[in-house]
Amino acid sequence: MKIQIINGPNLNLLGVREKSIYGDASFDGYLEGLRSQYADIEISYFQSNVEGEIINKLHEIGFSFEGIILNAGGYTHTSVAIADAIAGINTPVVEVHISNIYAREEFRHVSLTGKNCKGVLTGFGLNGYKLAIESLLSK
Amino acid sequence: MKIQIINGPNLNLLGVREKSIYGDASFDGYLEGLRSQYADIEISYFQSNVEGEIINKLHEIGFSFEGIILNAGGYTHTSVAIADAIAGINTPVVEVHISNIYAREEFRHVSLTGKNCKGVLTGFGLNGYKLAIESLLSK
Amino acid sequence: MKIQIINGPNLNLLGVREKSIYGDASFDGYLEGLRSQYADIEISYFQSNVEGEIINKLHEIGFSFEGIILNAGGYTHTSVAIADAIAGINTPVVEVHISNIYAREEFRHVSLTGKNCKGVLTGFGLNGYKLAIESLLSK
Amino acid sequence: MKIQIINGPNLNLLGVREKSIYGDASFDGYLEGLRSQYADIEISYFQSNVEGEIINKLHEIGFSFEGIILNAGGYTHTSVAIADAIAGINTPVVEVHISNIYAREEFRHVSLTGKNCKGVLTGFGLNGYKLAIESLLSK
Amino acid sequence: MKIQIINGPNLNLLGVREKSIYGDASFDGYLEGLRSQYADIEISYFQSNVEGEIINKLHEIGFSFEGIILNAGGYTHTSVAIADAIAGINTPVVEVHISNIYAREEFRHVSLTGKNCKGVLTGFGLNGYKLAIESLLSK
Amino acid sequence: MKIQIINGPNLNLLGVREKSIYGDASFDGYLEGLRSQYADIEISYFQSNVEGEIINKLHEIGFSFEGIILNAGGYTHTSVAIADAIAGINTPVVEVHISNIYAREEFRHVSLTGKNCKGVLTGFGLNGYKLAIESLLSK
Amino acid sequence: MKIQIINGPNLNLLGVREKSIYGDASFDGYLEGLRSQYADIEISYFQSNVEGEIINKLHEIGFSFEGIILNAGGYTHTSVAIADAIAGINTPVVEVHISNIYAREEFRHVSLTGKNCKGVLTGFGLNGYKLAIESLLSK
Amino acid sequence: MKIQIINGPNLNLLGVREKSIYGDASFDGYLEGLRSQYADIEISYFQSNVEGEIINKLHEIGFSFEGIILNAGGYTHTSVAIADAIAGINTPVVEVHISNIYAREEFRHVSLTGKNCKGVLTGFGLNGYKLAIESLLSK
Amino acid sequence: MKIQIINGPNLNLLGVREKSIYGDASFDGYLEGLRSQYADIEISYFQSNVEGEIINKLHEIGFSFEGIILNAGGYTHTSVAIADAIAGINTPVVEVHISNIYAREEFRHVSLTGKNCKGVLTGFGLNGYKLAIESLLSK
Amino acid sequence: MKIQIINGPNLNLLGVREKSIYGDASFDGYLEGLRSQYADIEISYFQSNVEGEIINKLHEIGFSFEGIILNAGGYTHTSVAIADAIAGINTPVVEVHISNIYAREEFRHVSLTGKNCKGVLTGFGLNGYKLAIESLLSK
Amino acid sequence: MKIQIINGPNLNLLGVREKSIYGDASFDGYLEGLRSQYADIEISYFQSNVEGEIINKLHEIGFSFEGIILNAGGYTHTSVAIADAIAGINTPVVEVHISNIYAREEFRHVSLTGKNCKGVLTGFGLNGYKLAIESLLSK
Amino acid sequence: MKIQIINGPNLNLLGVREKSIYGDASFDGYLEGLRSQYADIEISYFQSNVEGEIINKLHEIGFSFEGIILNAGGYTHTSVAIADAIAGINTPVVEVHISNIYAREEFRHVSLTGKNCKGVLTGFGLNGYKLAIESLLSK
Repeated sequence: MKIQIINGPNLNLLGVREKSIYGDASFDGYLEGLRSQYADIEISYFQSNVEGEIINKLHEIGFSFEGIILNAGGYTHTSVAIADAIAGINTPVVEVHISNIYAREEFRHVSLTGKNCKGVLTGFGLNGYKLAIESLLSK
Repeated sequence: MKIQIINGPNLNLLGVREKSIYGDASFDGYLEGLRSQYADIEISYFQSNVEGEIINKLHEIGFSFEGIILNAGGYTHTSVAIADAIAGINTPVVEVHISNIYAREEFRHVSLTGKNCKGVLTGFGLNGYKLAIESLLSK
Repeated sequence: MKIQIINGPNLNLLGVREKSIYGDASFDGYLEGLRSQYADIEISYFQSNVEGEIINKLHEIGFSFEGIILNAGGYTHTSVAIADAIAGINTPVVEVHISNIYAREEFRHVSLTGKNCKGVLTGFGLNGYKLAIESLLSK
Repeated sequence: MKIQIINGPNLNLLGVREKSIYGDASFDGYLEGLRSQYADIEISYFQSNVEGEIINKLHEIGFSFEGIILNAGGYTHTSVAIADAIAGINTPVVEVHISNIYAREEFRHVSLTGKNCKGVLTGFGLNGYKLAIESLLSK
Repeated sequence: MKIQIINGPNLNLLGVREKSIYGDASFDGYLEGLRSQYADIEISYFQSNVEGEIINKLHEIGFSFEGIILNAGGYTHTSVAIADAIAGINTPVVEVHISNIYAREEFRHVSLTGKNCKGVLTGFGLNGYKLAIESLLSK
Repeated sequence: MKIQIINGPNLNLLGVREKSIYGDASFDGYLEGLRSQYADIEISYFQSNVEGEIINKLHEIGFSFEGIILNAGGYTHTSVAIADAIAGINTPVVEVHISNIYAREEFRHVSLTGKNCKGVLTGFGLNGYKLAIESLLSK
Repeated sequence: MKIQIINGPNLNLLGVREKSIYGDASFDGYLEGLRSQYADIEISYFQSNVEGEIINKLHEIGFSFEGIILNAGGYTHTSVAIADAIAGINTPVVEVHISNIYAREEFRHVSLTGKNCKGVLTGFGLNGYKLAIESLLSK
Repeated sequence: MKIQIINGPNLNLLGVREKSIYGDASFDGYLEGLRSQYADIEISYFQSNVEGEIINKLHEIGFSFEGIILNAGGYTHTSVAIADAIAGINTPVVEVHISNIYAREEFRHVSLTGKNCKGVLTGFGLNGYKLAIESLLSK
Repeated sequence: MKIQIINGPNLNLLGVREKSIYGDASFDGYLEGLRSQYADIEISYFQSNVEGEIINKLHEIGFSFEGIILNAGGYTHTSVAIADAIAGINTPVVEVHISNIYAREEFRHVSLTGKNCKGVLTGFGLNGYKLAIESLLSK
Repeated sequence: MKIQIINGPNLNLLGVREKSIYGDASFDGYLEGLRSQYADIEISYFQSNVEGEIINKLHEIGFSFEGIILNAGGYTHTSVAIADAIAGINTPVVEVHISNIYAREEFRHVSLTGKNCKGVLTGFGLNGYKLAIESLLSK
Repeated sequence: MKIQIINGPNLNLLGVREKSIYGDASFDGYLEGLRSQYADIEISYFQSNVEGEIINKLHEIGFSFEGIILNAGGYTHTSVAIADAIAGINTPVVEVHISNIYAREEFRHVSLTGKNCKGVLTGFGLNGYKLAIESLLSK
Repeated sequence: MKIQIINGPNLNLLGVREKSIYGDASFDGYLEGLRSQYADIEISYFQSNVEGEIINKLHEIGFSFEGIILNAGGYTHTSVAIADAIAGINTPVVEVHISNIYAREEFRHVSLTGKNCKGVLTGFGLNGYKLAIESLLSK
């Protein structure tokens, strides 16, 4: 089973940026733990700050992988193009947000991309990625 | 460990009502499975169509239980009073929606209650309740 | 044939409250006349000021009765939960308003519940209930 | 007793146009049945696609007839001028919509004309016209 | 000098309709007085309830007359087409409203047609037409 | 003289919940002091988290008591039904909010119920209930 | 007969400021002509850039003069206080705008003050003041 | 093959009106050229300023012609009734605008009629009609 | 103890203006009574129709007085500058409205100034000023 | 003559993605046909999912080519930057949409880029590109 | 060279009021330093809490000075009249805000006055005034 | 001291594009002058039309440089992702716009990125970059 994790803009700064919101763990360390927990799943990882490269990645693996976990960061609230990309591929996408988007600024309450996903998880910290894997496994 | 599941209006019709949206499984059968999977957790269940009774239940167990899983149904989008109740108790609340609220009518995209919850899960079917338990266990 | 009339909040004050808008007849007297006019129809009556109890009643008789006449009063304009309940049952619901909701405050022009009903009647006074019965008989 | 039925734009296509919404009966056949049911009422019929001609007709018979049944079609949602005409005449007007306007596009939920009418009926198919006559008879 | 007065929908009911708003004088009597006051001006009069006929009249005389006085009634607030017609002709148009549109419903505060007129007069009763003539004379 | 205090949702948690906003005094202690200060007034107390039960109480005492002090909590901002109940009874209602609703989230700035009350007091802490009694005494 | 002309902010710059919009005539010269044309009317003039001084002037002469002509300039679109002042006095007020407010920025289309005036004239240049006098004379 | 061109309000002024926007060619000359270019197509032409007559024409030929080219002018942005007429007929309709509606006032950016058309062309001048014919030929 | 009462625009007309809304008592008479009731409090009074003078007064006494009672009249709904002034001083401000602002036009429901006040009282007539003093005394 | 076709995000999936909306033809095959039809025109093709690369391409050829055909996909509705790029170059741009954007979700009705284009074609399927070439040839 | 600094409402409290936002320096001290830095420029200073007096000052020096630096405080967001005054004078105006208006409440994000200024500086503390002088010097 | 200038989309066309808005100087020439004026500051320059590359650059130098001057062009008004990037780094960012964004289209009045910057300068032409350097030097 192959699962792709895609992190969008500024998530490369995890553990460095706004720690009061996002915590102080880096994603690399977390990912390592995740891979050892799910040794039988091939977990690919991709991060980009470029909207179009996220679309490219979705196209590239969206017809062969079993699941995609997407945290589109700030593009979640503005990108019709990523939303269209999710609708255009076959692999189910689970949307994850580290912080609870409903507890932040109003413009973050809206998810353009969420409507084309299988489901959305928000507010569970890095643990949201693990829950997303669980959700892909269970069905 | 004690966890309370609270289901709001119309969720007593699960398996009967609008099956194309909510599936044809009843909640009772699902709950039984959940309890046997998590034998060491005391999982209480409460369903009510009355907004105020949901608040009563939140008050009743919101200072002693370790976690609450809340699907407030239609009240999610309209109830300031339930949102206030969640803010007023100590037990962390995880909000669950069976269907993907972003893929339905626009008035369902807004969650008044979500901002006071630990996190929100939407679109994972009944499996969302299990993921919510996992989220409460992991932290 | 069994028809259920459900009156929502403040309609127990009919004949007492705001007579310039709602008239000075009580609903009891009107109901008596209605039942004698339609002697072959079993007309049940329920009034509650509690949103959730209206939902309970809709669930209770919504799979066995031939028709429901609903005047949800102030909940008409705010209750996603009652609207969901109507969508979740099998019995057709006809919505009635005593006063013309279009001729009152703007927030009364919107009916959340109406979209899931068979039809809506507004402005015909108590006679609206009789017209609703007629509408249920004719089809 | 004299009652005028006024049908607005596109209602001449009834039975031809969008049958899934409006049914496949023509209005002529329905009207014939209505007239034989209410033999003691003189039921006049007028259809026009022109907003101003509907106003002309309202003026023409709005001081002598006992009742008007108006289905203003698409003008319901846009015509201040027809709404003003209804307010300017003496004969009570009952507004009828064949389909349930609350169950269609959002711009159809608003009725500019309804506020000046005696009452509004929506969603009862062609039977709405008969119910409108009943409403005019009963008071 | 030739001036055209154009009255829109429902203004043929002046003196009959909603007297508390529009007064009880008919336009015919008023017009007679106006013509005798301005004996050297050829004052033409046209009334129609049909939006398109108002446009036709604007086109017909809008390249030869010295002035147009337009009371477009309810079309004032909804007609892009009449506004375009005013922009398309050469004769200056003065817009008149008998009642004060700012003191009525909010949808009457907006004038789509006014922006293409030389000026707008509102609230002066029938006297507004005389003031409009004065405004056309003075410049 | 009989005065009814009605507290809405979550106000049973006073002294327990969100102390930075609502203070740490319980309502019971405060009420005792109030009753001894106004020994000649019969002060009844009712608290409910259920919207409809608040309406029931308003109906029950709204034709016999001299005054009602209502803190409808979160329902203040959403309940057309409670607003209608206040309009439907005879006893004057004074609305009280412990915190200053204008200094909190924007959705709390609007009071649906306030328009049908004699007056509204917001921001005076528990002392607002005493001021409300004063306001009922003075006129 | 005593008439007061009140000019609001920036109208002291007439003939100097934005000539393409307001023309190049100063108000003083115009006023002189007006006074000689209406020799039997006592025309007082007041200009202020201060909102509150306009209110003071309205209060001062609003119970004794026969008419007020008000061009509140930019305050037209923002001043609840001036609108209240007009409602509070007895003398009828005619609102004048030199330019056509409908043909300018959208925020100028709204007149807060207009609703409490006898009538509003917009777009007739300085001649609007003369028309306003005519309107006060004719009724 | 039979194609109907329908031009709405003010398009009879083409070549006369607002030449900076619409150019200085009349439609008659253009139509002649079009007919000689497409000698094997029967191109009918209809222009009206009356909304309802445009609907009448759509009904008249909308079940027999192969294509309709509609420039509804100002009605494009306001007419629910024409939009309904297009939905009610069988012949495909191509919407044409001479000027680029996106480059003009904001209210012209919305097309109510466009959603029921086969396609929309805007901004190509008179050439848009030729392109519309091409679009009807090619499929 | 020193308390300042500040009345804003048009409140100098109390007892003269719009008596159906504001009553027929003048403020002077009321103030006299208030001062004799609270003989040990130094009650200063200031009224101005000028927004900036209200700010001047707030600055002047806002660092030395024990309390301010402010009725900013129409500026309540529009003045960011007065709201800023209240935030900038030390003395607590209690906002008073004679009429119930929630029962009037919608633009009066919003209070820009209220958010920076200790509390707001609305609808208690002149008695509101006495209640405001009580509120300043009690805490 | 040199014409550049620029396709935006997700249009590389044509023939694969959402066939019910976009059809099952790939763009490559279509392009081949187009080039053979217009043998004397040099038709360049560029597709990118990256907003900024579309801007780069517009800059690169926007001062030398005779025409650009742009289908900006999802960026059409969100990209101020592409709209600015179109305004900044000399080559005329024709905007094409394969599906009818007016018949889809409301957020697709708005085109930010369209206002700076020569014209816009929407709803003609792949044939829209051919019509766009025709439009560039004809003027 | 003569430059006028105009400070609006509450800026006289600088160094006293809300120090966490505006700092604890008084303007007088700052101004002194500024004058000694720019010894060859005549820097006049004016502060008023009265909107109209700010307009008076703009008129007074707006045809003779070389530059104006305006911090209109709360009037920035509400004053059409000051915006008009800036448009009416000849001297270029540079708008300064001490705090970053984009980082504060949403109603402070809008500047009515800014559109008529040469430029706007926000967020640079008192240093903004110096930068404004530099901007006036450099061009 | 190291300062980074980042120019966003279309600013590479400076001196070529829309000269009436942006002037006819190229940025290269201007930069050269800037560097010679501030010889002791290391001024790096980066321009990109790609949103994500701007984020990359902000990350790259945002923890080591002393200041960043950002003109995000069209992304200013739409990019949550760039705004998040500014919040995530340590180096202070000064936002610059060459033209006065308040004097252009309404969608340009909003700056999503500005709220996370130290300050914003708009309308000073290329000189704005120099003022931004000054602002970084002075504090």
